[in-house]
Amino acid sequence: MKNVIEIREVGLRDGLQLSKTKLSTDIKIAWCKQQCKSGFKEIEVTSFVPPTILPQFNDAPKIVCEANKIKNLLPSVLVPNLKGALIALDNKSKKINFVLSASEMHNKSNVNATIQKSLSMFNDLVVERNNRGLKNNVQISASIATSFGCSIQGKVEQGTLLDICEKLIVMGANELNIADTVGYANPSQVKEIFKSLFQISGNTPLAAHFHDTRGMGLANVKSAIDQGVKRFDASLGGLGGCPYAPGATGNIATEDCVYMIESMGFDTGVDLIKLLNLRKSLSNWMNKDTLYGNLLNSGLARTFNND
Amino acid sequence: MKNVIEIREVGLRDGLQLSKTKLSTDIKIAWCKQQCKSGFKEIEVTSFVPPTILPQFNDAPKIVCEANKIKNLLPSVLVPNLKGALIALDNKSKKINFVLSASEMHNKSNVNATIQKSLSMFNDLVVERNNRGLKNNVQISASIATSFGCSIQGKVEQGTLLDICEKLIVMGANELNIADTVGYANPSQVKEIFKSLFQISGNTPLAAHFHDTRGMGLANVKSAIDQGVKRFDASLGGLGGCPYAPGATGNIATEDCVYMIESMGFDTGVDLIKLLNLRKSLSNWMNKDTLYGNLLNSGLARTFNND
Repeated sequence: MKNVIEIREVGLRDGLQLSKTKLSTDIKIAWCKQQCKSGFKEIEVTSFVPPTILPQFNDAPKIVCEANKIKNLLPSVLVPNLKGALIALDNKSKKINFVLSASEMHNKSNVNATIQKSLSMFNDLVVERNNRGLKNNVQISASIATSFGCSIQGKVEQGTLLDICEKLIVMGANELNIADTVGYANPSQVKEIFKSLFQISGNTPLAAHFHDTRGMGLANVKSAIDQGVKRFDASLGGLGGCPYAPGATGNIATEDCVYMIESMGFDTGVDLIKLLNLRKSLSNWMNKDTLYGNLLNSGLARTFNND
Repeated sequence: MKNVIEIREVGLRDGLQLSKTKLSTDIKIAWCKQQCKSGFKEIEVTSFVPPTILPQFNDAPKIVCEANKIKNLLPSVLVPNLKGALIALDNKSKKINFVLSASEMHNKSNVNATIQKSLSMFNDLVVERNNRGLKNNVQISASIATSFGCSIQGKVEQGTLLDICEKLIVMGANELNIADTVGYANPSQVKEIFKSLFQISGNTPLAAHFHDTRGMGLANVKSAIDQGVKRFDASLGGLGGCPYAPGATGNIATEDCVYMIESMGFDTGVDLIKLLNLRKSLSNWMNKDTLYGNLLNSGLARTFNND
C-alpha cells in the first residue's frame, strides 16, 4: 500500500489571475471536469473578488454551481476578505480558502488590511459558518501568503508566521496552507519552517503552495514531503506568476509535480496520460500565455511505474 | 564557517555537444575565463573525441593549453575511451573524466564497447598515467552514465552500478561521477543509490551529474546533498540535452543550482552577480539555441544572503 499525497489544482484561480488569455466559463468548466477525470479530488475553481479588480472571475457563482455538480470533486474557492467569504458561503462553496499574508506589507498591498484585521475577519467567517449550521459541510482553510519571505517587505520572521498559525488553529481553521507567493523559499528553510509548524499544528492538516520562480519549486516539495506534508497546490503548465518578476515562472507545474511524487513511490491517484492530454488542450486554450513544465516535452521515463 | 559544496561547469562540453550554435575557440576560452573569475574552480572544458563525430571539439588541444594557463582553475576533459584518454594525457590534461555507462546498451551506443571493455580501458589508463609518473599530477575520474536508468535499455539494476563502482575504486579512480544522463532519476532513487554508494566508496569522492529533463534536477541535487554529496555538475543556461527527447531541457542550470545551494546555507565560492553577467553573454553567444534556467529572469530574492 503506497502512501497518499494529494495534489490540488490551482490553475483555474492562481493561474488565471494574471494570464493574458481570458477563458470562457464553458472552457473553465471543461478544464475542471477533465482534471477531475484524471484523478484530482480537489480543485481551486475560482475566486470571490470584486469583478472591478479581477473581471476574469466574474463568473464565480456559475463556476461554483457547475463544479459542485461534479462527482467526487471538492471544489474550493479563494477569498481575500470576509465580504468575499460570505458571498462564497451564499453560493454554496464547499471549501473556502481565506488568504492573508505573513508579511504585514504584503497583506496591506494584497488584501488592503492589517494582519490583525484579516485574522479578525477569519474568526468572523468561522463563527458565521457555524451559525449557519455549516460546520460539517463547509471547510475553511487559511492560505498564508509570503510565508517564506516577501518581495515588498523582505524577510518574514518565522515567529510571526508561527504566531499567525497558532491563532488560526485556535479559531478553528480546517487547514493551514503555507504559501511561497514570490518564490523565495529554499529547501533548508522549508524543512525548518515545517518542522516548527508540525510542532504546533496538532490535528490541523498542513498544506504547501510553492512557486517555481527561482527553479526550486520541486526541491521544496521534496523537502516538505520529508517533513510530512501530504497536500500540495500546483498549477497545470506552471500557469500563474508574480507581477513583480516579469518573465519569471509562476506556480510549480502540476504535471511535473505529480510525476515526481509518483516516481518517488507515493500515490497521487492521478492518471498522468489523461493529465497530459488535458495539458495539451490547455496549450491551445491559453494561446496568449507561455506555459511551463518539462514533462509534456520529455514524456514519461521508460522506467516509470515499471518497478 | 559554512560547509562547502562545489559546482563544476560542464556547459563547454556537455552543453556544446548537441548545440546548434558552434562557438569559436576564442569565445570558449573567454567563457572559461569569465566563469573562473566568478569563482569556479573546476570546469569541464572540452572532449577528446574523433573530430569526425563531434567536430565542435576539434579545438580540444588548444582549449586545454589555454585553460591550463588560467590561475586557480582545474580544467577537466571528457574522454570516451583509452585512445581519447591517451591524447588527453599527451595534451597535458590535469583531470580526465572517463565516461562509461551502467547500461550495457547505452555503453554500446555511446562509446561502442561493452562495459567490461570500458572497465579494462579505464584500468589501462590508470596504469599508463602512473607509468608516466603522473599519478599525483593527473586525476582520473569515472563518469558513470545512465546510473539511474536508460532510455534504450530501461531499468538499470542498482547491483550493476555498485559492481561497476567497486571495480573502478579498486582500479584507483580519483572520483566517481554518478550521472543521470537521460533525466530518469527521482529524489527517492537518488537517496537510495547514494546511500548504497557511500557504503562502498571509502575515501573516493562521489559527484553527481543531473539532468532536468523531467523537472526534477534540483530536487535530485537536494536529495544528494542530504546523503552527503558535495560535488555537482551543472551547465550554464541548462545547455545540453538528450537527442532522444526533442524539446526537453538538458543539464540542470548552473545559475539556478548555485542559487539553491547558496540559499540553503552552503558555500559554493561563486559570485552570482558575475555568473549572471556571464549568463547574459551566453544568451548572445548561443543565439541559435534555447537557454533555460529561472534565475536570470527572476533575479535574486530580496532576502538572499540577508540572514
